[in-house]
Amino acid sequence: MNEESLTYKDAGVDIDAQNSALALARDAIRSTFTAGVLGDVGLFGGLFDPARVGCADQILVASADGVGTKLEVAARAGVYDTVGRDLVNHCINDVLVQGARPLFFLDYVGTGRLEPEVVAALIRGCAAACKEGGLALLGGETAEMPGLYRPGDFDLVGFLVGAVPRELLLDGSRVEPGQLLLGLGSSGLHTNGYSLARKIVFERLGLALDARPAELEGRSVAEALLAPHRSYLALLAPLVEAKRLAAMAHITGGGLADNLARVLGACDATIDLDAWRPPALFRWLCAAGGLERDEAYRAFNMGIGMVLVVPPDEAPAVRAHLAARGETVFELGRTEPGGGVVRWG
Amino acid sequence: MNEESLTYKDAGVDIDAQNSALALARDAIRSTFTAGVLGDVGLFGGLFDPARVGCADQILVASADGVGTKLEVAARAGVYDTVGRDLVNHCINDVLVQGARPLFFLDYVGTGRLEPEVVAALIRGCAAACKEGGLALLGGETAEMPGLYRPGDFDLVGFLVGAVPRELLLDGSRVEPGQLLLGLGSSGLHTNGYSLARKIVFERLGLALDARPAELEGRSVAEALLAPHRSYLALLAPLVEAKRLAAMAHITGGGLADNLARVLGACDATIDLDAWRPPALFRWLCAAGGLERDEAYRAFNMGIGMVLVVPPDEAPAVRAHLAARGETVFELGRTEPGGGVVRWG
Repeated sequence: MNEESLTYKDAGVDIDAQNSALALARDAIRSTFTAGVLGDVGLFGGLFDPARVGCADQILVASADGVGTKLEVAARAGVYDTVGRDLVNHCINDVLVQGARPLFFLDYVGTGRLEPEVVAALIRGCAAACKEGGLALLGGETAEMPGLYRPGDFDLVGFLVGAVPRELLLDGSRVEPGQLLLGLGSSGLHTNGYSLARKIVFERLGLALDARPAELEGRSVAEALLAPHRSYLALLAPLVEAKRLAAMAHITGGGLADNLARVLGACDATIDLDAWRPPALFRWLCAAGGLERDEAYRAFNMGIGMVLVVPPDEAPAVRAHLAARGETVFELGRTEPGGGVVRWG
Repeated sequence: MNEESLTYKDAGVDIDAQNSALALARDAIRSTFTAGVLGDVGLFGGLFDPARVGCADQILVASADGVGTKLEVAARAGVYDTVGRDLVNHCINDVLVQGARPLFFLDYVGTGRLEPEVVAALIRGCAAACKEGGLALLGGETAEMPGLYRPGDFDLVGFLVGAVPRELLLDGSRVEPGQLLLGLGSSGLHTNGYSLARKIVFERLGLALDARPAELEGRSVAEALLAPHRSYLALLAPLVEAKRLAAMAHITGGGLADNLARVLGACDATIDLDAWRPPALFRWLCAAGGLERDEAYRAFNMGIGMVLVVPPDEAPAVRAHLAARGETVFELGRTEPGGGVVRWG
């Protein structure tokens, strides 16, 4: 055959670039290794011994998540170190609401053309949030998929495993009528509603990332949209350990109603929409998009990132704990007899 | 404001389509639930109790993986039920090589426009392989990301957690000079080298998916390229439990050399390239692509999907076990004193 010899690189896959991305991030990854981690970076599977962090014989809680099209905003802004943080914190909150402490995290980066610096920045963002949350970045996968992702585009997916002692598990079974629903503030859109927000901000309003519309009260579009997803771990873990909560709902895709409904069990809830004023970013998006109320509350968290379901006799201690940490608490309503329906009041 | 009211659906995100995909796959997901699973589909985090499947106080082994651009071939062929199987089996093999039995799996599907039937088929493929491997499909995430993925495009990512008793852990520390390297056949490309294979088959040769070139010995291009990734779990778990293996290497991205090197520890290895004849698919790809030898053996598994590192005194029992199950074994070489280098001999 007289044809030129093809290489894997000709086909758009650069194994050296993968190794180089990993090399750039290796120190950050290693810095997250807790006492539970056995072995080093680069094994087929990451090894973790729950017994070495006091979690032998506990129930495992696992969650998989993405960052949604917040990625597109980050890529457009050239900011690669915050979306990893978004992803880890999202996953931390998802296992925290069942009472679990996070043990380890794995990341997946899919790209069209692998740029080692970008991938390393994504992984370092994950590592920073892991370190902050006390969990290990145990492993991951970087895939270069020419044709599936366009050059410059990427997806970032995370997987987290936590552990909870049987007696602290929050599975909805402790929810009873008459319990308080306390809302805690979000730091922004967290990781939901970005496709709608992008349509409003970039298409309808035609704004640039560095625009500073008056409604954002001094922040740029990029700053408002890329505010990192908040982790509630440090704030709420002591309440879980003291058994002061009946349930928690992390307000993600589907909004307040859909996510609270997931933990209500044999109760309904009526949410008092006057209990809090949605922050400026949400008011601005709703007005500019002409959003119907239900649509807005399903796409966005509207300023509430977490809901605690609290037995009345625990309420004073819970309020005191949160107040001592400077947390503003919104009293959203109470649980009622029912079957998992959330209404607006 | 006189403008039309925007909805999340206008922005390309259809929460109902997500729920509908989940509804279509729910029975398949539930059918994988082993005794370890607590709770049902749809919790924030999936709950798994290792003690209920006899794995209390074991070491956890976790792996994250994708399917690479085999997805693009599957999407083009409209075959959505085998890539889930590829993904689960890939992950199973990745934890198996450290001695672990798979406990549970989580999937992530990222799409441009969510088609419930396609997503459900992907998840059902994962579920089928989970059921076969005796692990639970514990949870997952489906993300509709308009703009990031083109309509019809998707990525599929998997996370698997397995468990291994301390005394069965394979971490490379049992590898010593003079041990045998036994190769086991792959079922095809498994999930690596697809970008190069696609370039050769579709660009250079200009073939259609239903073409049946003589070199494929009766199979169509689609059949040859979409052959599911083989799981070695049932075949090899008994050898792990009987402590007959020093190490195993799953031959994935980077090929035989890079993957074997990962487990060699303080040994080198020389691989006898005459020990086996690469199957027809590989010979055809190498010839049509004019591939250099090293390039081919780095991009493709070349017919070897798994390598066992076997202490000489265990070799007769290992060979007998494999022969009794009809497995062809290729004697690739032996380990030598060194430091993790693999050479071709």
